[in-house]
Amino acid sequence: MKPLEEARRTFLDRASTKGLLRHEIIPSVEAVGRVTVTPVTARFSSPPFHVAAMDGIAVRAETTFGTTVDRPKRLKIGQDAFYVNTGHVLPPDTDAVIMIEYVTDIDEETVEIESAAFPWQHVRKVGEDIVATELLFAQNHQITPYCVGALLGGGVFEVEVKEKPRVVIIPTGSELICYQDLGPNRLAPGQVIESNSAILGGLVTACGAEQIQLPIVPDHYEAIHDAVKDAVAKKNHIILIIAGSSAGSEDYSAKVIGELGEVLVHGVTMMPGKPTILGIIERKPVIGIPGYSVSAIMAFEQFVQPLICRMLGIREPVRDTIPVRLPKKIPSKLGLEEFVRVKLGKVGDTIVATPLPRGAGSITTITEADGIIRIPSHVEGIKEEETVTAELLKTPEEISNTIVVVGSHDNTLDVLADEIKAKNDQFRLSSSHVGSLGGLMALKKGICHVAGSHLLDAKTGSYNISYIKRYLPDLSVKVINLVVRQQGLIVPRDNPKKIKGIEDLTRGDITFINRQAGSGTRVLLDYRLDRLEIDPERIKGYNTEEFTHMSIAAYVLSGRSDCGLGIYAAARALDLGFIPIVTEQYDLVIPKRFFDDEKIQLMLEVIRSDAFQRRVEKLGGYDTGLTGSLVYESP
Amino acid sequence: MKPLEEARRTFLDRASTKGLLRHEIIPSVEAVGRVTVTPVTARFSSPPFHVAAMDGIAVRAETTFGTTVDRPKRLKIGQDAFYVNTGHVLPPDTDAVIMIEYVTDIDEETVEIESAAFPWQHVRKVGEDIVATELLFAQNHQITPYCVGALLGGGVFEVEVKEKPRVVIIPTGSELICYQDLGPNRLAPGQVIESNSAILGGLVTACGAEQIQLPIVPDHYEAIHDAVKDAVAKKNHIILIIAGSSAGSEDYSAKVIGELGEVLVHGVTMMPGKPTILGIIERKPVIGIPGYSVSAIMAFEQFVQPLICRMLGIREPVRDTIPVRLPKKIPSKLGLEEFVRVKLGKVGDTIVATPLPRGAGSITTITEADGIIRIPSHVEGIKEEETVTAELLKTPEEISNTIVVVGSHDNTLDVLADEIKAKNDQFRLSSSHVGSLGGLMALKKGICHVAGSHLLDAKTGSYNISYIKRYLPDLSVKVINLVVRQQGLIVPRDNPKKIKGIEDLTRGDITFINRQAGSGTRVLLDYRLDRLEIDPERIKGYNTEEFTHMSIAAYVLSGRSDCGLGIYAAARALDLGFIPIVTEQYDLVIPKRFFDDEKIQLMLEVIRSDAFQRRVEKLGGYDTGLTGSLVYESP
Repeated sequence: MKPLEEARRTFLDRASTKGLLRHEIIPSVEAVGRVTVTPVTARFSSPPFHVAAMDGIAVRAETTFGTTVDRPKRLKIGQDAFYVNTGHVLPPDTDAVIMIEYVTDIDEETVEIESAAFPWQHVRKVGEDIVATELLFAQNHQITPYCVGALLGGGVFEVEVKEKPRVVIIPTGSELICYQDLGPNRLAPGQVIESNSAILGGLVTACGAEQIQLPIVPDHYEAIHDAVKDAVAKKNHIILIIAGSSAGSEDYSAKVIGELGEVLVHGVTMMPGKPTILGIIERKPVIGIPGYSVSAIMAFEQFVQPLICRMLGIREPVRDTIPVRLPKKIPSKLGLEEFVRVKLGKVGDTIVATPLPRGAGSITTITEADGIIRIPSHVEGIKEEETVTAELLKTPEEISNTIVVVGSHDNTLDVLADEIKAKNDQFRLSSSHVGSLGGLMALKKGICHVAGSHLLDAKTGSYNISYIKRYLPDLSVKVINLVVRQQGLIVPRDNPKKIKGIEDLTRGDITFINRQAGSGTRVLLDYRLDRLEIDPERIKGYNTEEFTHMSIAAYVLSGRSDCGLGIYAAARALDLGFIPIVTEQYDLVIPKRFFDDEKIQLMLEVIRSDAFQRRVEKLGGYDTGLTGSLVYESP
Repeated sequence: MKPLEEARRTFLDRASTKGLLRHEIIPSVEAVGRVTVTPVTARFSSPPFHVAAMDGIAVRAETTFGTTVDRPKRLKIGQDAFYVNTGHVLPPDTDAVIMIEYVTDIDEETVEIESAAFPWQHVRKVGEDIVATELLFAQNHQITPYCVGALLGGGVFEVEVKEKPRVVIIPTGSELICYQDLGPNRLAPGQVIESNSAILGGLVTACGAEQIQLPIVPDHYEAIHDAVKDAVAKKNHIILIIAGSSAGSEDYSAKVIGELGEVLVHGVTMMPGKPTILGIIERKPVIGIPGYSVSAIMAFEQFVQPLICRMLGIREPVRDTIPVRLPKKIPSKLGLEEFVRVKLGKVGDTIVATPLPRGAGSITTITEADGIIRIPSHVEGIKEEETVTAELLKTPEEISNTIVVVGSHDNTLDVLADEIKAKNDQFRLSSSHVGSLGGLMALKKGICHVAGSHLLDAKTGSYNISYIKRYLPDLSVKVINLVVRQQGLIVPRDNPKKIKGIEDLTRGDITFINRQAGSGTRVLLDYRLDRLEIDPERIKGYNTEEFTHMSIAAYVLSGRSDCGLGIYAAARALDLGFIPIVTEQYDLVIPKRFFDDEKIQLMLEVIRSDAFQRRVEKLGGYDTGLTGSLVYESP
C-alpha cells in the first residue's frame, strides 16, 4: 500500500509516455481539442496586404499635409485619391484612408478634404495580425476554436497533431451483466449491471482520448489473462482492467499484470480507490480499477487522467477550490487520504458543506456532490465548525444560487426541485435528510435556508409550532405548508398477515420495525399508541430502529419484519403494500431574514403553482389543500 | 444602436426558445453532454438486493448478541452462518456479515466468532444508493459521465433528451475564399481566407449544438436573401449570417433579415462586435455576425451561446474572474462597452495585465489572450495602476506559472517559449514587446520577471549595463545573454538599388524608413552614423519613424521606402533582401529576487541547452557564443 502522492510519482515516472503517441496530419478545421507536435509557424501574413479599414479614399498621407478647414485641398480621383471600401487592398503608393464622411465631391473627378491624413490612418498593415514565418503556436498546444482562426488566417490548412491515446476498458466480474443483455427483464439475484465501462468511457473521451470498451470478462484467471494480453498486443496505449465489486476479481487483476509485466503499486492509501493497481506491461501502463463506481472514478482521476495529459503533453486540469464551513465533524482514518463528497450551498456569507454518504459503491454520492473535501492521511478527521477547502464540481455561481433545505425527507422535495429547474435555470434546490428535529437544529446553526419538518405536538395535535418555540426561541421564522401526507403501515405486497391498523401491532405473529427516536414518524407512532392506550412494550420489534422511510421499506421487503410506519412513496418504491393510518402536516420553516430572497420567493411561487400541486397529487398519498399557505409566523 | 445588456434582453426575450427543440430517446451510454427533457426516475433500486460488503459469513445479528472473547459463540454453516463474498446477495433471514478475518474454523460445519455483529454490519442494503421510483435527475439536467453510471445503476437504459440545436453558419463576402479552393497558391490581392465559419463552428460544437456550415455566399443581395430563406425553411434552429469584413455585406444582412422577418437590434454599443444584427425570421433567431474574427467571437459569446443554453435549458457558462493590476492606462470610448484582451502574469503577489492590440480583425489578440477586461460603457477608460477585474481564459495556475518577459522583441523568445513548453508542461513564457527601454521601465515598475534589452552605450560600445545603472539604480539584477544577433538593412528582394551599407543611405535615389527614438535599433543606427560621421539630416526619410522590425519590413515591401534597419527574421518573414551591418547583444535582465524562482531557473536551463541553441542558429542571423552566460551582475 502506497500513499497517493508516492503512488502517482512512482507510476507516472515509470509509465514513460514521451514519444509513445504517433503523429498525424489533419485539416486545421478538424483540429479543435487536438495537441500540436511541433511549433506551428505562419505561412501567410495576415492581412496579406495593406488593406483599408474604413470606406473612403486611399491617399498618400504626405500629399495631404498642411490641409486644414481654412486651407482645404482638392484631390484628383485616380491620381491622388482612390475610392476604397473596408477590406480593399490599398492602391500602390497610398498609405492612408480618409473616411468617406470627410470627403466632399466637387465633380466626377475631384474631391475635397479639410484635414490632413497621417500615415497608415485607417489602414490594416500587412502582418498586423500574423507575420509569415512567425510562431503561431508552440508545441504541446491544445487547439481551441479561436486557434483554428489563427491557423487558417496564417495559411496553415493542415496541422500535425498527436494521435488520440487509445484507452482500452476491460470490465471483469461474473456477477456483471451488460444492460443490453438484460433487456426488459429485472435483475436476477446477484446480478449487477455493468456501468463502470460507460462512466470511464465518458471520462476518457472528456480527456481527449479514445475509448475502446471490451465485453465483460468473467472472473476466470485465464479469461482475464488473455483479454489483457490481447489488449496490450494491439495498438492501444493504456489498458484499464475493472475488477468486479467482489474481492476475487481484484486479485486476478494483480496476478495477471504481475505475470504479463510488472505491478508497480498494489493498493493506494486513498478512499475511495484503495484497491487500485498500477502496473506496466510491455511499456504500456495497465491500471487495475476498483469495482465500486466511486472508487473507479477516483482511480481514473488520480492516475489515468494525468497519464493521458502527460502523453498529450498538456496540463492536467485542476479543479477550482473554495473555503467551506463544516457544521458537523467528519471522522476519517489516519493513514488514509479521504475524498469526502459534499453538497454545498451559500447560507448568509458562508459556503456550508454537507457530507454525502461515504460508500464507494454509491454513484449518487458523486452525481449529487457539488464538491470534494480531501482529508489528508495524517489527519484524523475534520472538527466541527472547521473551515476547510473544497474542490468544486459545480461553479461558485451555481452554489450561490442554491436553496439549501435540511430536515425530514419527503419525495415532494424532488418534485419541487424539478419544478424550480423548469421555471428558472438559474436556481436549484438541494435537500439533505437528517430528520425533522435535525432540520430545526440546522436552522439554529445557520447552515440552511429552509427546514423541512413534520413534528407533531402530542398535547395540542398541531405540527411544528411548539417545537419551533422551544428549539428556535431567538429565530424569527415563517412556516409554509408544503404538503399534507399520508403515513401508514408498510407491509409486504398483498399484505399476507392481513394487518389492518396500529391495533394489530401487538399481535403475537407480527414483528414491527421502528423509526429512530426524534424522527417525526416515531413521534407520530407514539402519539397514536398513546391515544389507543397501547403499551409499546407489547409490540415485538418496537426497540429495533431504522433511520429512513426507505430503510423501513427495505426491512419489510427482506422479510425481517412484517410492517413498519412510513410514507406511501417508500412502499411504492419497493412495490410493497401500504395501509393508510393518518395524515400529517409537512411544513417548510424559513427564517424571515431569508424570506424575501429571490430564490426563496421563487420557491414559494413554484409551491403555489398549479403545475407543482398537480404533480404532487399524482404521486399518491398527498393532499395539497394547505400547500403554500402560511401556517405560522413567529412574533 | 443598443447597449449590450438591453440588446441581450430584447433578443433573448423575443427569440422565444421554449419548446423549439424536439425530443429524442437515446441510449443512456450515449447521452453524455445531452440535456434531459423530463425528470428521470429510477426503475431499479441499487443495490437491488441486500448484498455483502465484505468477504466473510452472513449471519442474523440477533443470534450473535452477547458474544465476547470470553464467551465465544459457535455457528453452524448452512444454518446460522453462510459463506459470502463481497457483492453476494445475503441469504434469507440474515442481516449482517462478519469479516472472514474474525471467523475461526472449528470443523467443516462449524465456525466460531468472538464478538457480536450489529444489524446491517458490512451489508449494502437494497436501495442504499438508488431507490426505485426516486428522482435521479431533474429536467434540464446536463448528463455527465458520472450520471451515466447512475442511469444504468437505476435501470434507466434509455433517456429522453432534447435534440441538439442546429446552427447554420452562412459566410458572405465576395472577397472571401475557402482554404480548400486556394490549394497551394498564394492569395491574390484582395482575397481573404474565410476562417470565421470554422471558428464559429467550433464554438457551436463546444456549446453542445450542431453546426451546419454553408458555402461562401458572394456579396449579392439576392444570393444572401435566398441562402437565408432556405436556411430558415429547413429544420434549423438558429441562423448565423457572417458579413464579410467589407461594409457592404453587413448592410445586406440587415436588409435580408428585415425583409424576411424582423430586425430587433441593429448595432450594439460593444467593441469588438458593434455591427452585430439581431433578428427573427419565422420564429427562428437570425444573427448577423460581424466579419472581423474577434467581433464574430464576441457576438457569438454574447448572443448565440446564451441562446443555445436557453434552448437547452442549461446555465450559461460564466468565466472565472480575478483582480488584476493595470500598469498602463487603457483609454476607451464613452458609450461603448469594451472587451480588452490582456495577457496576464503573476509578478510578486500581483496579477499584472498587459493589454493586447485592440484591432477586432486580429485573431491573435484573442488566441494570445489570458483574460478579458470589460470596460463598461459609462467609463472613459481605466487609469494607470487601477485594479480591475479580468475574466479568465486560462486557469489561475497557468497564470501563476507564467514567466513574464517585457521589452524588445526578438524571434528567439518564441523559440525559448516553445522549448520551455517542450521541457515542462507546467510553465510557459509570455512576452510583450515595448522596446528595450520599455522593458527596463517594466522591471522598475515591478510588472515583469525579465526584461529583454539590446541598448548600446555609444560611449563604451557595451550593451545595457550603463542603462541599467541609470534607470534601475535601486534594483539588484543579473544580466544573462540570450543571443548575439545581426542587424542589417532590409531591402526589397534582389536589392534593386544595390545598397551595400549605411554609407549608401545618403544617396539621392534612396528613401530610408527609421525606427522610433529610444529603440535599441535607433540607438544602433545613430551610433553607426556618428562613427561614420554621417549627418542624419542628409538621409531622406530619417524623420519617418516606425515602431517594430516588422513595420520596417512592411514599409519596404510596400515600396514606400528603399530600406530600413532591422533584424534578419523580419526581412525573411516578408521575403525581402537583407544586408548584414552589425552584430549586437540581446540580453535578459532579471531582478535577483526572481532569480532563484523555479520557473526562472527552468528558463535558464533551457537557454543553456543544446536543443535551444541549435534551433536559434538554424534561424539564421544569430550567434550563440555568449548565450546563457552572465554578462553583468549589479553589486
